[in-house]
Amino acid sequence: MTLNILFAANETGWAEYEPHLRHWLAEAGIEAQLGPDLGPPSEIDYIVYAPSSEVQDFRPYSRLKAVLNLWAGVEDVVGNPTLQVPLARMVDNGLTEGMVEWVVGHVLRYHLDIDHALANQSGEWLPKVPPLARNRPVTVLGLGALGSACAKALAALNFPVTGWSRSAKSVAGVSCLSGPEGLEQALARAQILVLLLPLTPGTENMLNAPHIDQLPEGCCILNPGRGPLIDDTALLEALDSGHVGHATLDVFRTEPLPAEHPYWSHPRVTVTPHIASATRAETASKVIVDNIRRGEQGKPFLHVVDRQRGY
Amino acid sequence: MTLNILFAANETGWAEYEPHLRHWLAEAGIEAQLGPDLGPPSEIDYIVYAPSSEVQDFRPYSRLKAVLNLWAGVEDVVGNPTLQVPLARMVDNGLTEGMVEWVVGHVLRYHLDIDHALANQSGEWLPKVPPLARNRPVTVLGLGALGSACAKALAALNFPVTGWSRSAKSVAGVSCLSGPEGLEQALARAQILVLLLPLTPGTENMLNAPHIDQLPEGCCILNPGRGPLIDDTALLEALDSGHVGHATLDVFRTEPLPAEHPYWSHPRVTVTPHIASATRAETASKVIVDNIRRGEQGKPFLHVVDRQRGY
Repeated sequence: MTLNILFAANETGWAEYEPHLRHWLAEAGIEAQLGPDLGPPSEIDYIVYAPSSEVQDFRPYSRLKAVLNLWAGVEDVVGNPTLQVPLARMVDNGLTEGMVEWVVGHVLRYHLDIDHALANQSGEWLPKVPPLARNRPVTVLGLGALGSACAKALAALNFPVTGWSRSAKSVAGVSCLSGPEGLEQALARAQILVLLLPLTPGTENMLNAPHIDQLPEGCCILNPGRGPLIDDTALLEALDSGHVGHATLDVFRTEPLPAEHPYWSHPRVTVTPHIASATRAETASKVIVDNIRRGEQGKPFLHVVDRQRGY
Repeated sequence: MTLNILFAANETGWAEYEPHLRHWLAEAGIEAQLGPDLGPPSEIDYIVYAPSSEVQDFRPYSRLKAVLNLWAGVEDVVGNPTLQVPLARMVDNGLTEGMVEWVVGHVLRYHLDIDHALANQSGEWLPKVPPLARNRPVTVLGLGALGSACAKALAALNFPVTGWSRSAKSVAGVSCLSGPEGLEQALARAQILVLLLPLTPGTENMLNAPHIDQLPEGCCILNPGRGPLIDDTALLEALDSGHVGHATLDVFRTEPLPAEHPYWSHPRVTVTPHIASATRAETASKVIVDNIRRGEQGKPFLHVVDRQRGY
């Protein structure tokens, strides 16, 4: 039987993904019609999906078996009441690898004070050896695929890593805390704080004024997770006062971050334009096709979103 | 029996090392007179040594059992003809950890193009996702304690790592090459090159014009090893032409690097003031005392320098 697989992301994405999807489908021996324009919704078996797609009403897709998200984040689709079939998040090695590289790179940038080195090239020789990583506590909020991979990589470099998640988890080499009291402890010991929580009603504005107050003076913050995890007004106040030493922000409530936003010009903020990580067509296409193969073999889909939790 | 252990480094060092050395000596149950000023050389059993010390003639130390170097580098003492007892290099966990952190941090800085991010905070949103580390070949020249630890840490972050050493070595997860033909291959594949060779007559000016020519266009160079490994004139020419994309240099022929040296003002050079790593008094003191204990127990000393090889 030939499957109909709709690619409902965007045109640029299609050019990038088409060869990889066709390659992995052929490898898996799956015959399929594949494309962004495939005829009647009632004949579509799977949707390869980006939440920014024009497809927002899933009701006409009467024989749909699953929606396979190209993004790790599902907050813009998980609450869609017309979606009644399994929704799978993207858990892509390439995405995870890229995130680990960005997080470890910026944690080491703070740890080694690389900004200071780059700004001091005027001929003054002022040696100041940084402390060892083993004396630099780092806290990672969120212990999903991305957060736990980052926590493990930081622990492997000897940073004492505390990980926090809503419900209790266990990650080798990481002090795992959970719940509200755990959060207080995790914040209190963070010289560097990494935000990798999913965006849910429970995590929006997680980094608000009371939580920022619990951070030690001069704490540096990395947010490669989701923009709305941060109460921007509270963070800007804490940066102004110096209570937060620096923030490197990759994600924002509005993207592109408007040119007039105070984050751009703040001396204690580095803006990166949502590049901490990206789904890579090559590796992500394999994840998508693996899930289609599982569906066709009657196996449960991998990485299915729990609608109650929201991720 | 009470040992006489001369601390022949410098006054600042003594204040830093004294408590740690006394602590570990007590732990080891070794009774010792310890200090920078201990009476006649003929009664000294061990010298805890920095090559910058005033002690340069070892002949009066007639009962000396070993010289225990506080530095990893021994090039300023290994050729001293008055030194006839074993000379041990410093192999300190703290030194190695600090070096791994500096090297991984600056490799990731190049990999993620953090300099570009820091220089682009004017409100322009220009996302450019970096490649994955698995597609960024890194070469480490030198596979001693420091080089192999850095190579392993980079390989753990998925960089394809090539390691080169004069004589053949094997490091898990690293493509190890050796000899002159191996060097050519190691240089040719380096998008990022890390210099961690010991300084010997054979490695001086290792990075000269012919070897620089073998690097791929735009290669970035890290030198946390020794200043004279680089032919400075050849490197400056390659930086001017853009053949070498960037260099981060922590060590120099003359330190402090003179304020008028062209490295300071070169747009493609970052100078760091010999801070990539340092011997840490706490961990290094334990290494020193462990070796004294071995000597007193008649065991061979650890990390003894091979005078022929020079390290």
